[in-house]
Order: sequence, then structure tokens, then C-alpha cells
Amino acid sequence: MNANILTIGDELLIGNTINTNASWIAQQLNLLGVDVRHHVTIADTQEDIVNCLNIYLKDAEIIVITGGLGPTNDDITKNVLCEYFGGELEFNEEAYKNIERIFSSKKRLINEASKRVAYLPNNCLPIQNKFGTAAGMIFSIDNKTIVSMPGVPYEMKAMLTNDFIPYLKNRYTFPYIIHKHILTVGIGESQIADSIIDFEDSIPKELKLAYLPNIGKVKLRLTAKGNDIDYLNKIVTDATAHIAHKVKDNLYGFDDDVFEQKIGELLIQKKLTLCTAESCTGGYLAHLLTSVAGSSAYYHGSVIAYDNSIKKNILNVKKETLDSFGAVSEQTISEMLDGALALFNTDIALATSGIAGPNGGTAEKPVGTVFIGIASKNEKIIKKHIFTNKRDVNIQLSSTIALFMLTKFVEKYF
Amino acid sequence: MNANILTIGDELLIGNTINTNASWIAQQLNLLGVDVRHHVTIADTQEDIVNCLNIYLKDAEIIVITGGLGPTNDDITKNVLCEYFGGELEFNEEAYKNIERIFSSKKRLINEASKRVAYLPNNCLPIQNKFGTAAGMIFSIDNKTIVSMPGVPYEMKAMLTNDFIPYLKNRYTFPYIIHKHILTVGIGESQIADSIIDFEDSIPKELKLAYLPNIGKVKLRLTAKGNDIDYLNKIVTDATAHIAHKVKDNLYGFDDDVFEQKIGELLIQKKLTLCTAESCTGGYLAHLLTSVAGSSAYYHGSVIAYDNSIKKNILNVKKETLDSFGAVSEQTISEMLDGALALFNTDIALATSGIAGPNGGTAEKPVGTVFIGIASKNEKIIKKHIFTNKRDVNIQLSSTIALFMLTKFVEKYF
Repeated sequence: MNANILTIGDELLIGNTINTNASWIAQQLNLLGVDVRHHVTIADTQEDIVNCLNIYLKDAEIIVITGGLGPTNDDITKNVLCEYFGGELEFNEEAYKNIERIFSSKKRLINEASKRVAYLPNNCLPIQNKFGTAAGMIFSIDNKTIVSMPGVPYEMKAMLTNDFIPYLKNRYTFPYIIHKHILTVGIGESQIADSIIDFEDSIPKELKLAYLPNIGKVKLRLTAKGNDIDYLNKIVTDATAHIAHKVKDNLYGFDDDVFEQKIGELLIQKKLTLCTAESCTGGYLAHLLTSVAGSSAYYHGSVIAYDNSIKKNILNVKKETLDSFGAVSEQTISEMLDGALALFNTDIALATSGIAGPNGGTAEKPVGTVFIGIASKNEKIIKKHIFTNKRDVNIQLSSTIALFMLTKFVEKYF
Repeated sequence: MNANILTIGDELLIGNTINTNASWIAQQLNLLGVDVRHHVTIADTQEDIVNCLNIYLKDAEIIVITGGLGPTNDDITKNVLCEYFGGELEFNEEAYKNIERIFSSKKRLINEASKRVAYLPNNCLPIQNKFGTAAGMIFSIDNKTIVSMPGVPYEMKAMLTNDFIPYLKNRYTFPYIIHKHILTVGIGESQIADSIIDFEDSIPKELKLAYLPNIGKVKLRLTAKGNDIDYLNKIVTDATAHIAHKVKDNLYGFDDDVFEQKIGELLIQKKLTLCTAESCTGGYLAHLLTSVAGSSAYYHGSVIAYDNSIKKNILNVKKETLDSFGAVSEQTISEMLDGALALFNTDIALATSGIAGPNGGTAEKPVGTVFIGIASKNEKIIKKHIFTNKRDVNIQLSSTIALFMLTKFVEKYF
């Protein structure tokens, strides 16, 4: 079963509003086993809507439309759909009562523009709008279903979840679909591809593998689709186990797992506390750690030693060390770690120092040179990296790689 | 001049990734005076890409394509475009050197999958990728221009800004279009609208005003389009002066000004140094400050006192203060400021303490309660805010409002 998603509105087209509706709707349809074939965004004109229906009704049983249902003159979706499917607008008592309810809850009188909203096509099944005035509309044409909903996200979401998805489940029989995400950190897309090349060559036809890279992380998505749920479960389970084993050194979780959250769980489980001493990451490492609700249970804090005087005065990095080796050096990181452990009295300290850029690089230490260190009372590991020449990427990448080192360190020594 | 934006990738189609590329590209094309007619998202299959080109080459001179250019087998965009426009893949020396550069900077050897990336269509103008291995491609067919770029946002953005937009400007003549952005912080969209209601009622027909709200900030965009450049310049200049005056207390700049950068310039001009002491913002405030290249000239560092022991031991907040008033209180913030000034020996200290959520709220101090303080040797200002119930929004909003307080403080006392 195929679907196309059609989002209408100038604010989307000119890029002022990011189209979160399309991705949310796609997720919901996918969970149902529906293949979303296209997302299309168009302007609020009759010509564009009609052209789009002509094209996208061809290859899909389901068309989900959002936007253009408001009370103003530029909202024409309802009229265009009504005419396209051969109906006429009629006053709808229930829709009018809903508009009355919304207006009276705001202690306002219904205006003329809003009265027009109560006229609905006589060839659709209306969906009442719990949170706004514009009703949704379901058109059933032959074996196809077309739904039109408002563009306001919470209005649309309530209609889709409570009305449209149940309608679809009642009307059609859906195939089984299973998604599994394998989450990795500290390894590149092509390295992963190399390590599972044998698997990719012998993948069952019901299974698809996709690589979703992000800064410092790659998400692998397995999707299985078919009619034999036991078989689908088996091939997904087998493939997940196989890939997870191949990438085990860089695996941090599955599906909705959040890396920073997994780190928190690991530290809580091992009853460990953590502090950070940041130079080039400038607080971003702390931000990642504290983005997790409840992180104060294991994360005690940070010194951001942006100025060298702070490295000396607060973290006790020796003047001679800074003078001889520079702030971006293994020696400085080592003393930052010692200083942080002493100051925060935690089990583990993480430290960064590097040249985030765009300036400050030298031949010996180009922009992107970052030292990342980790230490406990008994162990210390410091690694030198050369990342990119983009400041923001260097900051994000250094922070993520520091957290990756943290997980390895805890697994090894605790 | 019309454009269509074609984004390729299953992760977009199934809704796992929100399509921020399409809106960003639409904004850039709009700034050029190009009308974006459609955004279309499709799967990484030959059939879909070819169908889509057949449809969307008809009504636009410009097609911008992103995605499907990686080293793995599911990345087929390059091959499909090459064939569609009648070319053949050829080894490209420059692209290979770029791949070598990327791999050697990571101290890795080029693998087979990545070597394939160096083969490019012989009928395109390649765009080198500064931040990744996959080159972009510009195809010029009759009066039309088709560009294909990677889906990784920062790779795509660099290519579009540095290569593709200049290419378009060179090839076509665009109407006059003038944009002016007026940048505000610490004031809401509707407050601004109220203050310029007279202006909006008498706006010249060639001029459009758009509100682009973000967390803690609102950008106002004036757009003038037409054939008389002098007249357009005049109405934009007049409108800018009028609006800037109305929002002067919250104005931080124009056009590409970056708030954090303006703060840096202000501190440098006044020869002031700054430190921060963060609790609920957890490093995000420091991250905003250090996102500016060269910020070490005025920003000395931070103590992130996530655990109360750190507030006591490092920032010298009294145990009695924490016991009597709690960590989220005016009294604690006041002592955090004193402690930070003493520790970092800077001219100004900024401090935050609050309940970011989702847990930890009480009837007296609900989630979203945040104290923000600023102090110099002689002055101290502390304000209580109640923001939202969303953790990430609270962290970002607290940080931005803290920086807004900083600018007001410096303007008033230095």
C-alpha cells in the first residue's frame, strides 16, 4: 500500500516553516506498513493542487493533504477538493456547532469568515476538529482514500491519530513492517560498510539496510516488509545480531536510544561520577551531558578553562607545561585531568583542548587538532585527533568522540 | 525564475529525518528572487528520480537536488543523473585528490567504496566538497540548471553558498530584490507587532514584512522586489529606520549579525572580560559564547556547578544559603556571582540556576523557573523568569536571555 503526502502552504515553500508535518505523518503511515512514496509541497493555488492530485493519485492508494483550510480567502483547499471529486459545499450542522464551541471558549463571536468554514463538501466524511474550527475531510474514491487536514500540527495530529488511522485500518488490510535501528558512534559510514560487506551481498530480499550518518555517529536502519511476520522477525533479529556484532566496538544502542542517556545509565549502573574540563569544546561537552534529565546524579560539573590563566589558576596546569608544550598538547591535557579530578573529586574526568578554528592553526598543529583525555585515579588515556576545518563541526565532533572514549574507558576499567 | 527542490532519501521519506535542507535551500533561492514552486521528496531509486525529473524540469529553470551521493550501494543519484543527461562516469583527478585529503587528514586509507566517489559524470561541472568526499555536480541543459549536492547539511550549505549561487548569478539575470533583516532579542513576536501596527497598515506595495521567530529572538525580514532599484533602496531604508527605532531596546543587529558575535565586539570595545557560572544551562551559555571564533579574548571560562557540592566547594556558595533558599534562588545566584568574580577575576560574571525540567518542579518553583544574574565589582542584577515546561527550550532560552541581560548591563554601567 502506497501513500503520498501533500503539504500546502507558502510558508513551507519559501522555507520559513520547516516541514515537520510531512515527517511526522510519514512516520505514522510507516508504522502502519504503508510505503510513503513522495512528500510534495506546493503553493495554495487551484492549478497546483489539481496538477498535484493528477500526478500523485496515480501511484498511491492514500493521499494525505495538510494546509489551506483556514477561514481566509487564500485558503482554497476545501473548494478545490470538493470540485475535483465532484461534490458541492453544504452547511454542516456539526461543524458549525464545533466552531461555536471554539469561539465561545475564547469568549468571541463567530465572524463571517469563520461561518464559511462550516460549509463542507457533500461527498466527504467530515472529521471534527477538537482544537480548531476547520474540519478535516475524508474522500473515498474507488479504492483510494484522500484526507485533507489543517496544517496546524496539533490539530492535524489529533485528527490523524484518532480518526484517520482507524479509518484506514478499517478499510484496508496492511502488510507487516518491522524497523530496527542499530546506533554507532566513532566510526565512519564507509568503515561500517567495509566491515559488513559480506552481509550486504547476501541480504534477504524482504530486508533493506540504510546508513544515516550524523556528526560522529552513524545510524543503521533495517526495514523488513512482507506477509509472514515470523519470518520478518527472524531476518531482522538475525541481521541485527550480525551487524551489532560486526560493529560491537562502536555500538551504543538500538532504536530510540540516546547516546548521552546511555552514558548516564552506564555511569549510574557502575555508580560512577564524572566531571569535565573543557577548552576547545567550550561547554558543548557539558551541554551534551546535561541535556539528559537527571544527569546531576552522576555529572558534577565542569571547568571551562578558555583562558590559559584559568588552566593555571583553577585546574593547576603548570606554567612551564603551557610554556613548553602549549595549551593544545598531551602534557596540558594530562594536567587538566589531574586538576579536574582533584577539584571535583569525581571518579572520572574528561578533558578537551584543541584548535577549533577557523584561526589559530600552525603547521605542526593545524586547525582541527584536538587532544581528548580521560582519567580516573589509576588510569589515564589521551588521544590526538585531527578533525575538520569547521569550528562548529570540530566542537561537536570533539564532544561526541570524548563521550565515546568515556564509554570505552568505563567498560575497560570499571 | 522558478525552481524546484528535490530531496532524495528514505530517511526523509519515512520521516526519520526532518527535511531542514529543503527549507534552507528555499530560503536561499528566495533571497535571490527565485520562486520555489515545489519541494519533492522521493526514494533513492532510478525510476523515482527519472519520473521526478520528467515532471519537475517542465516548470522550472532551476532544479536543486540533494542526497544519494555517498559511497554506499544505496547511493545512486550520480549514476542516474549522469545517464539521464547523456554522460558517462569518468575518473576525476581533482575529486580523487579531495578524497585523499579527507582520508589523510583522518589518518585513514581510502577504501574501495570511497574510490568510486571519484568517478564523476563527464557532462557536469563538478563542485569540490570541502567537508566530505562526495563532489557536487552542475548540469547545464538548454536554459536550465540542475545541481546535485550531498544531503549532509554542512556539506550542502557550503557548496550552495560558495559555488552554486555564484554560478546562478553569473548565468541568469535576476529581478532587483532587496532583503533587510532587523534582529531582536528578548521580545515576543506579538509585542513587536503591536509596536509597529501603524507601519504595517501603511506598508508600500513593493515591500513585504515577515516575522521569523526563534527561541528568545525574532528576526524581522523586509523584502522589496521590483525594477526601480533606487526606489526599492529608499523604501527599505525608511522602513528599517522606522522599525529599528520602535524596537531599539531589543535590537542587536541587522542582516547577518550574530548575537554572540555582537556581544564579543561590545566586550572588546569596552575592554571587558567575562566569566560564567552555570547551573541549569549546563554549559550551553558557555557554548554560545565560545561558538564565536576569537572569544578567548574576552571570555575566560566557566564553572558549571551542576552538583551543589561544586557550588559550595568551587564557587563558595554558603551551605546555609543552599539549605535555606535552595539552589534555585536569588540568594544562591548572588553568591555564585560573587564566587565566579573572585575565582576568574573578570570584570563581569553571568550566572544561571533553574529547574530545566521535566522533573524537579514544585508548586512554589515550577519547571521553567530560572534565576539569571549578572554582576560586576559594583553592580549586581538578578531576575527571576518562568519559561516553559520543555527542558531544551528552557536551556536555550535561559542562555539567550542571560546574554541579553549582559548587553543591557554593559550598556548601562560601562
